[in-house]
Amino acid sequence: MPASDTGAFRRLWDELAPIGRDPGTGGYLRYAFTEPELRLRDWFRDQAGRRGLPVTGDGNGNLFAGLPQDADDVVLLGSHFDSVPHGGAYDGPLGIVSAFLALDELRARGRTPRRPVAVAAFAEEEGARFGVPCLGSRLLTGAIDAGRAAALTDRDGVTFAEALGGPPAGARPDLVGRLGAFVELHVEQGRALVDLAAPVGLASGIWPHGRWRFDITGEANHAGSTRMTDRRDPMLTFAFTVLAANKEARLRGAHATVGRVRVEPNATNAVPARVSGWLDARAADPDVLTGLVDAVHRRAVERADRDGTTVELTAESVTGTVEFDGGLLAVFRRALADGVPVLPTAAGHDAGVLAAYLPTAMLFVRNPTGVSHSPAESATDDDCVAGVTALADVLEELAC
Amino acid sequence: MPASDTGAFRRLWDELAPIGRDPGTGGYLRYAFTEPELRLRDWFRDQAGRRGLPVTGDGNGNLFAGLPQDADDVVLLGSHFDSVPHGGAYDGPLGIVSAFLALDELRARGRTPRRPVAVAAFAEEEGARFGVPCLGSRLLTGAIDAGRAAALTDRDGVTFAEALGGPPAGARPDLVGRLGAFVELHVEQGRALVDLAAPVGLASGIWPHGRWRFDITGEANHAGSTRMTDRRDPMLTFAFTVLAANKEARLRGAHATVGRVRVEPNATNAVPARVSGWLDARAADPDVLTGLVDAVHRRAVERADRDGTTVELTAESVTGTVEFDGGLLAVFRRALADGVPVLPTAAGHDAGVLAAYLPTAMLFVRNPTGVSHSPAESATDDDCVAGVTALADVLEELAC
Repeated sequence: MPASDTGAFRRLWDELAPIGRDPGTGGYLRYAFTEPELRLRDWFRDQAGRRGLPVTGDGNGNLFAGLPQDADDVVLLGSHFDSVPHGGAYDGPLGIVSAFLALDELRARGRTPRRPVAVAAFAEEEGARFGVPCLGSRLLTGAIDAGRAAALTDRDGVTFAEALGGPPAGARPDLVGRLGAFVELHVEQGRALVDLAAPVGLASGIWPHGRWRFDITGEANHAGSTRMTDRRDPMLTFAFTVLAANKEARLRGAHATVGRVRVEPNATNAVPARVSGWLDARAADPDVLTGLVDAVHRRAVERADRDGTTVELTAESVTGTVEFDGGLLAVFRRALADGVPVLPTAAGHDAGVLAAYLPTAMLFVRNPTGVSHSPAESATDDDCVAGVTALADVLEELAC
Repeated sequence: MPASDTGAFRRLWDELAPIGRDPGTGGYLRYAFTEPELRLRDWFRDQAGRRGLPVTGDGNGNLFAGLPQDADDVVLLGSHFDSVPHGGAYDGPLGIVSAFLALDELRARGRTPRRPVAVAAFAEEEGARFGVPCLGSRLLTGAIDAGRAAALTDRDGVTFAEALGGPPAGARPDLVGRLGAFVELHVEQGRALVDLAAPVGLASGIWPHGRWRFDITGEANHAGSTRMTDRRDPMLTFAFTVLAANKEARLRGAHATVGRVRVEPNATNAVPARVSGWLDARAADPDVLTGLVDAVHRRAVERADRDGTTVELTAESVTGTVEFDGGLLAVFRRALADGVPVLPTAAGHDAGVLAAYLPTAMLFVRNPTGVSHSPAESATDDDCVAGVTALADVLEELAC
């Protein structure tokens, strides 16, 4: 099939569209190793089989199509299937679908790669189930300790090892050493390509970013009969911390979000015993990021002193600045049309983890709404095909 | 048994202590019509049977011991079994245990009531499962529409009618008309009796109070890649509203609490689509209460305009000022020792609902910690027995 054929894209896309979709929100619930994500893995095996690509695992939940034992200097394409709660259709799966279609496109062009080309589906990229994003690629590279990963739990208390069906294998230098490059195609999670009127762009790097948990402890009490002065209400400290994070981030040109909260006991007529809030923070510079989190923590502690509560801060995951491979970027620029935009991103990706171990690059496909991690995320079929074509162009330059 | 016997109290109390207790927090999870609360109902039937009291229902989930069809001018005692999440042991069950023991005490004194005396266990007093407090007594009296109550759902989407096993019967004037008085004994939910060094007190009335839900809607988006200026983040509006509620309540000498939150999708790396917060507000005067809620709503809407979010306010339940029956209070004062303290309370109770329909009064038992809706809630066995003795004294005056 020629990649310029939107019909070929649409046929594959329609196979995935219903899997894990919540008819209420139109968003996706594709958590790692749950039924919808397992069905997507079956689809991956089926697509690999149709193309004669053997499928192997790495003992960490990641899947590879076309990565035989004797392969070396492999060009790896791919992304992830898992979603945030009520996430969009494109974040992750677009990179996997595009990888298979780019292989088809190469074949349609009559080109045979001299380097092996494989497709990956990484596990738990969003961290929506076990709390650590890019868990699969972190395990594969050894960026996270396998024992720590095994013990991570979801909200029902199920451990990662239990979900995986056994303890994760951890670092696989034997496997990583056979990879010569990784290219992840991803829907853009912002409006830069819309502003630039470009269907496809390249990533220059990823902002340093991380997740920090604020556990704020007070004292559970009756909401009616407890005098305001007798309270130690952690909800007040939490609320102040949310507003402080927003203000401190804006002052620094950084990003801060509190999107997840846990309240105990979470009853209308009880002052909470404890409120936990998760801070997602990102900045162009690691010092700015550290300064931001320190400032939010300091202000939370000051407020806690007034509220009679205590604040405990835990860094759940922190990722430094990622700069994608300069040599690979030069190849991409040669392969693609003049003036293809190069953008930084504040979003984490498996490509960001792998970049510390091998030449890595990313392609972005335009997102008309600019919205991400939401059902409103979108991409036109034409732009998706432009992404496939760009990926095939790059592959031809890299592997043929 | 003489009520002065702490052994008799302890024996009954020990039967209840393990039921629905979370070994982690030491608090109780006794939601209406869940397994622990059903076991407490079995215990109620057993205790009634031991005392020769027939048990009847009212089609609304409330249980009555000793309320035969032909009984009239009945003196009703009792309280509720259900708890808030991780609530204390005494809130509710103490009133039911004390009622049975007060009947035993009358018998031990050789007194036979000339008026029938019955014991009630009301359903869903806390509103912890279906959101409306005093749901059982509101249904019995017709203070809530039976159709509305039937459709209330718990967090899993189970309706009240499903939990009850059928649609609730609603108002039972035939039954309420046969009640001559209701007396609810309850653990104090504050420190007034500690300050006064009194084991037992009377309630003068209940502050007007209610529950309001703030639904704040923004736009789900990626926490990393969405510029701060492009966000419509409902968590910011929520946080501001929490702090505004606290400030406005303190300015008015009122009580305001946000103890329950629901975040969608509640993911670390997503700006929320929606945050719902429940405001519990109480004040000595209904105008002050209305002014408080209006002020919080106004400030929430102002902030929402800045955040690009919207605020919708729903009054889930509002209860006006309750003044307990003056005649009954006079009887209590005659029956009890001179100088028994008389206290207002800011906590809602089934007695507050029934007070609009028949002479109603409350007795409080001292709570050394003053803490309530928490595992730290407590009462000494001696004070509990003082409560039983006071209840028996009152019954003797009222019914013998």
